[in-house]
Amino acid sequence: MTEERAGTGVKGLDEMLGGGFVPGSMILVRGAPGTGKTCLALQYLIHGASKQNEPGLLISFEEFPSSLYRDAKSLGWDLAKLEAEGKLHMLFTSPEVFLTGLESPESQLNQLILTGGIRRLALDSVSHFDRLTSLEAELRPVYTGVTNGLRREGVTAMLLGEEGPSEYRRAFKGGLSFLVDAVVVLRHVEIESTMQRAVVVLKMRGSSHAKEIRRFEIGPKGLAVTDTFRGREGLLSGMPHRAPG
Amino acid sequence: MTEERAGTGVKGLDEMLGGGFVPGSMILVRGAPGTGKTCLALQYLIHGASKQNEPGLLISFEEFPSSLYRDAKSLGWDLAKLEAEGKLHMLFTSPEVFLTGLESPESQLNQLILTGGIRRLALDSVSHFDRLTSLEAELRPVYTGVTNGLRREGVTAMLLGEEGPSEYRRAFKGGLSFLVDAVVVLRHVEIESTMQRAVVVLKMRGSSHAKEIRRFEIGPKGLAVTDTFRGREGLLSGMPHRAPG
Amino acid sequence: MTEERAGTGVKGLDEMLGGGFVPGSMILVRGAPGTGKTCLALQYLIHGASKQNEPGLLISFEEFPSSLYRDAKSLGWDLAKLEAEGKLHMLFTSPEVFLTGLESPESQLNQLILTGGIRRLALDSVSHFDRLTSLEAELRPVYTGVTNGLRREGVTAMLLGEEGPSEYRRAFKGGLSFLVDAVVVLRHVEIESTMQRAVVVLKMRGSSHAKEIRRFEIGPKGLAVTDTFRGREGLLSGMPHRAPG
Amino acid sequence: MTEERAGTGVKGLDEMLGGGFVPGSMILVRGAPGTGKTCLALQYLIHGASKQNEPGLLISFEEFPSSLYRDAKSLGWDLAKLEAEGKLHMLFTSPEVFLTGLESPESQLNQLILTGGIRRLALDSVSHFDRLTSLEAELRPVYTGVTNGLRREGVTAMLLGEEGPSEYRRAFKGGLSFLVDAVVVLRHVEIESTMQRAVVVLKMRGSSHAKEIRRFEIGPKGLAVTDTFRGREGLLSGMPHRAPG
Amino acid sequence: MTEERAGTGVKGLDEMLGGGFVPGSMILVRGAPGTGKTCLALQYLIHGASKQNEPGLLISFEEFPSSLYRDAKSLGWDLAKLEAEGKLHMLFTSPEVFLTGLESPESQLNQLILTGGIRRLALDSVSHFDRLTSLEAELRPVYTGVTNGLRREGVTAMLLGEEGPSEYRRAFKGGLSFLVDAVVVLRHVEIESTMQRAVVVLKMRGSSHAKEIRRFEIGPKGLAVTDTFRGREGLLSGMPHRAPG
Amino acid sequence: MTEERAGTGVKGLDEMLGGGFVPGSMILVRGAPGTGKTCLALQYLIHGASKQNEPGLLISFEEFPSSLYRDAKSLGWDLAKLEAEGKLHMLFTSPEVFLTGLESPESQLNQLILTGGIRRLALDSVSHFDRLTSLEAELRPVYTGVTNGLRREGVTAMLLGEEGPSEYRRAFKGGLSFLVDAVVVLRHVEIESTMQRAVVVLKMRGSSHAKEIRRFEIGPKGLAVTDTFRGREGLLSGMPHRAPG
Repeated sequence: MTEERAGTGVKGLDEMLGGGFVPGSMILVRGAPGTGKTCLALQYLIHGASKQNEPGLLISFEEFPSSLYRDAKSLGWDLAKLEAEGKLHMLFTSPEVFLTGLESPESQLNQLILTGGIRRLALDSVSHFDRLTSLEAELRPVYTGVTNGLRREGVTAMLLGEEGPSEYRRAFKGGLSFLVDAVVVLRHVEIESTMQRAVVVLKMRGSSHAKEIRRFEIGPKGLAVTDTFRGREGLLSGMPHRAPG
Repeated sequence: MTEERAGTGVKGLDEMLGGGFVPGSMILVRGAPGTGKTCLALQYLIHGASKQNEPGLLISFEEFPSSLYRDAKSLGWDLAKLEAEGKLHMLFTSPEVFLTGLESPESQLNQLILTGGIRRLALDSVSHFDRLTSLEAELRPVYTGVTNGLRREGVTAMLLGEEGPSEYRRAFKGGLSFLVDAVVVLRHVEIESTMQRAVVVLKMRGSSHAKEIRRFEIGPKGLAVTDTFRGREGLLSGMPHRAPG
Repeated sequence: MTEERAGTGVKGLDEMLGGGFVPGSMILVRGAPGTGKTCLALQYLIHGASKQNEPGLLISFEEFPSSLYRDAKSLGWDLAKLEAEGKLHMLFTSPEVFLTGLESPESQLNQLILTGGIRRLALDSVSHFDRLTSLEAELRPVYTGVTNGLRREGVTAMLLGEEGPSEYRRAFKGGLSFLVDAVVVLRHVEIESTMQRAVVVLKMRGSSHAKEIRRFEIGPKGLAVTDTFRGREGLLSGMPHRAPG
Repeated sequence: MTEERAGTGVKGLDEMLGGGFVPGSMILVRGAPGTGKTCLALQYLIHGASKQNEPGLLISFEEFPSSLYRDAKSLGWDLAKLEAEGKLHMLFTSPEVFLTGLESPESQLNQLILTGGIRRLALDSVSHFDRLTSLEAELRPVYTGVTNGLRREGVTAMLLGEEGPSEYRRAFKGGLSFLVDAVVVLRHVEIESTMQRAVVVLKMRGSSHAKEIRRFEIGPKGLAVTDTFRGREGLLSGMPHRAPG
Repeated sequence: MTEERAGTGVKGLDEMLGGGFVPGSMILVRGAPGTGKTCLALQYLIHGASKQNEPGLLISFEEFPSSLYRDAKSLGWDLAKLEAEGKLHMLFTSPEVFLTGLESPESQLNQLILTGGIRRLALDSVSHFDRLTSLEAELRPVYTGVTNGLRREGVTAMLLGEEGPSEYRRAFKGGLSFLVDAVVVLRHVEIESTMQRAVVVLKMRGSSHAKEIRRFEIGPKGLAVTDTFRGREGLLSGMPHRAPG
Repeated sequence: MTEERAGTGVKGLDEMLGGGFVPGSMILVRGAPGTGKTCLALQYLIHGASKQNEPGLLISFEEFPSSLYRDAKSLGWDLAKLEAEGKLHMLFTSPEVFLTGLESPESQLNQLILTGGIRRLALDSVSHFDRLTSLEAELRPVYTGVTNGLRREGVTAMLLGEEGPSEYRRAFKGGLSFLVDAVVVLRHVEIESTMQRAVVVLKMRGSSHAKEIRRFEIGPKGLAVTDTFRGREGLLSGMPHRAPG
């Protein structure tokens, strides 16, 4: 018997993931500004809370709470209602406090995870840990601490990672991509004088997954993952173009 | 009922923005020299002041006041008249003074925003904050301070950001693009031995927006956003070319 | 009479290798996250243990043991059974302890190799040694120490090396590729809006080997190396495209 | 009534500029070695001196006076004659002396501008200021000092800036392009196994201007700006090629 | 009368070299891992020792002697036999000891060259000198010392240089390519989903040489240099592709 | 009446130069290893000495005298004879001694120039001055010192500059290209699986010059500059290819 997967509720994406993320796994979602990382994290938490009975926790290091509520609302979600029902929790903190809390059983973070029965967690964004040290070599242990700490909590954690417009071709700082169980990349793709969003699952330990690069759409009705970019090459290289012939 | 959007008065652009910017949002306008950032900021303030009854404030760290008046005049705008009517305010200051003022209720900046009933603000340019520190990691808190400070003021703020000719493909310094609610990119695009201007909305929190890359024109009659670059690829990559076939 | 080669059990790959790796050789397997390095290492050890009577040792600097068991299980392998039979050993340690142990006959590492009759070894990953020094010039002697130490042990060692998405075009840190006997590169290759895996053998001292770039697949039935990418150019350059004409 | 523009006397270029440069503006002319920056500066000064009754001043930080006279002569210009008539002045100085002089009313520089009735100025080259500091952040204030100082003098100033063969795609050091009113780029363009010169006006505050990339020719009869590069793409990217189809 | 050239015994390559290397010259052989540098060096020494009566010396800074014997054997060469006959000598040493020895007549190195009548020398690899200093400017004198020292010995020396997969486009460290008399580049070239080896002679002082980029093959029967890459462009740029039309 | 030009004796090149270099000018010849810089310098000196009655001086910072004689001989030139006739002089020295000598009337350098009636000079190579300082900003004054010193000597000087395979696209160190009167670039160009040599004159103060990129050939009969690369694009970009259509 296989464990139930942690679905996102986005049909196309869950199909790509073989039903959803593997429970207890660490998922890195990388993307440039505007590619929809925060929307995907909200969707992931809301779906768990409302459809899979998995209470969620959103940890934000920077965003204004009010912005989040407004963003969610524009997609048809009522965060306040889920919070009132105890299905969704928000924690606005700093990277330093988060790291300390992860180590201490009595911390607000751990109490919240324990009493709230948190099963899903989203961290917006792991890139803030980059600023704790200027030495690349010191960053890896920080990331190891984060992922090991979260694994001990038993949550299925989505870690949002900030990228520049073409940084997919560079190694992610501190080798985080090697530490996590799954890597989802969101990209802006220029097609016929239009910026479209693409999603691809680059890595998924312990599971098979779809390899397609698919369209990722965010509209007033929420998120959708649809078809592939038929007849296009170079989507992830930053130079998409129509294939010859 | 939705809030009224903060329009720019440029018909094509307002359509792309779903009517205009979301009130209270932070908008980053990135562009190389000559792509029209200052013109767009002036247009945004003038439209608010004269058509939506939203008094505006332009904060400049470098430009000569006389240059601004002349530039505006060449586009058919009379800044002095709007100033005399109390609809437009100019503040020529330094990044350091601005940051200090943002924190202090008695500062000239805050008094001006309060007494002038300022609703729209343009900052030319945020790139000057880059020079306050040589450490990338120290820049993010500066930008967080700026955007949080402006959010507290309740203004809809357009932050102009300086880029080199092909820097769109690099992450914007200090991760500012992740902090703001909207990102508008202006670009020079070489088409048939001519440099044209392009505009694209890369990010817009809490709203849907058009994804097209459209022509952005500045002429004696003002600004216009028109059609897409049909049949072209690689517009944002810095290597635009005619698509094969 | 030639020595028996250390096969991987992946038919297509063993064909490329002229039967398998040369016994006693040092093999660098380079790849980006999600290209299948750990899967290949497990496959290599399991095949040796179960089909060629070569006990194996997996040394991991970071991964959770439980993750490894789960990953193996998803590919149809039962690591625990092999461990119980004494055919497979796991060592979770740090780069520093590993390096010290390699030098000392009484170390846990050496005792394990000796008493376990270890013939195959996999190290996940050599990139952790990069973090022991910030000077490129000091890294080479570290790598020389690792490869010479392992050569003295007489094992056939697979060293996993972490790369970013397009780092194949850069020299591997510390010149490790020059020190080892064989270099196998795993790559993500974008073909028709899909990310496929490719494998190529770039170097193999003391043996001829196939030069093709072939598809590398990981599925519920395990690993497979199949056909070449007919009609494609630029596979390793990071810009694969259909060849004209 | 509009002010008379500061023409260059090169018909094709003056057309692109809407008649000439805006009086009192700061113009950056960027180009690689051999693209004709100094020739354009001489042409600009000579035309002002001889045709628009605007005495000119050439400030050079490095070139031998004799080289300048010879270069001018090869283009059919007699600098000595214009100097004798008091229409053209030459100042061979250092960046440090220039900066100090700009601040002091009694300096040789200011006396020369005052008594000579200087209306046009050319500075060869602003890149020498780069060498005054090794910190990018300290360079901007230097450039601000130069442009503000020259604005106070009331001259229309052409600032020559040194670039490498493909540096157009990088931001100009110290953000000078953002400080000036106009940016003219000169480029070498490889067309059919020949290096041709191209000129483009990237920025012009307070005026409309042509956007074409045109041929820029230097011959024994002087300078000429002619047609566009019809059917070519990628002219400014450094990889010009014939457009398909 | 011309001196006899120092042939490699690889027919296709000797033709390219006008018969072989110029006696007494310094030859840099650059290549990425797996391109066949060590094989070419062995071939060069063996041919000299067995066919041109030129005793050879291989100096290795890193490789295990046993690996070398095995590699040679796989290509059908018996190094031990040549050593027993006094035609081939091996010296496993460090860069520091080598440099000191080069200066001192009594050193093991010089005694070996003198008593062994060494005419050909191969150094594997010169890249180890890079690690003696972190300052590029200090590296040139080191290389000058190496090449001048070897010139004084009167040997024809092949210096192997390590490159990354695409480093041909970068200057070789310390400007070594400018110091030597000949430069031979070995490259991996991707053709139709296969990695092939290519060889090109970029420089050869005092002699004409073929300019073709040819296939370089290593098989059980040894080395071969065959035909050119007809109909291909961009071989050395790292992006080989079929030429259009 | 125009001064006689300093020809190179290479017919195709002298045509490109309008007869030869302008007397008294500073000429930078840039090129990668093996592009023929030293050959061109020898040809330039020999032609002046034997055909235009202009005694020449070759200053070398590194090359062995014997190598130079051999190289010249392979091209059919007898340097020793010209030396014996007092038409050609060789000076093997260091950058430091050269710089000091340039400033002092009694130096060996100045005495040689004076008593030898030197009219042409070649310096192999100016890149050695790069090593005198690690600060880019300190390099410019060194180069200014060299060019101004040589201008005072009244010689027509060819300065050889070392480049990597694709460094044409980078600015030459210390801005030397801006200081000199002429820039000649030698390049390796890959055409149909063959490395050919190309020459282009990028800059020539005080003279018109051909803009073509032409073939540059070095054979047993000496140097030749022939036709252009008809139907090819991207020659100087490092990615030459057949133009479409």
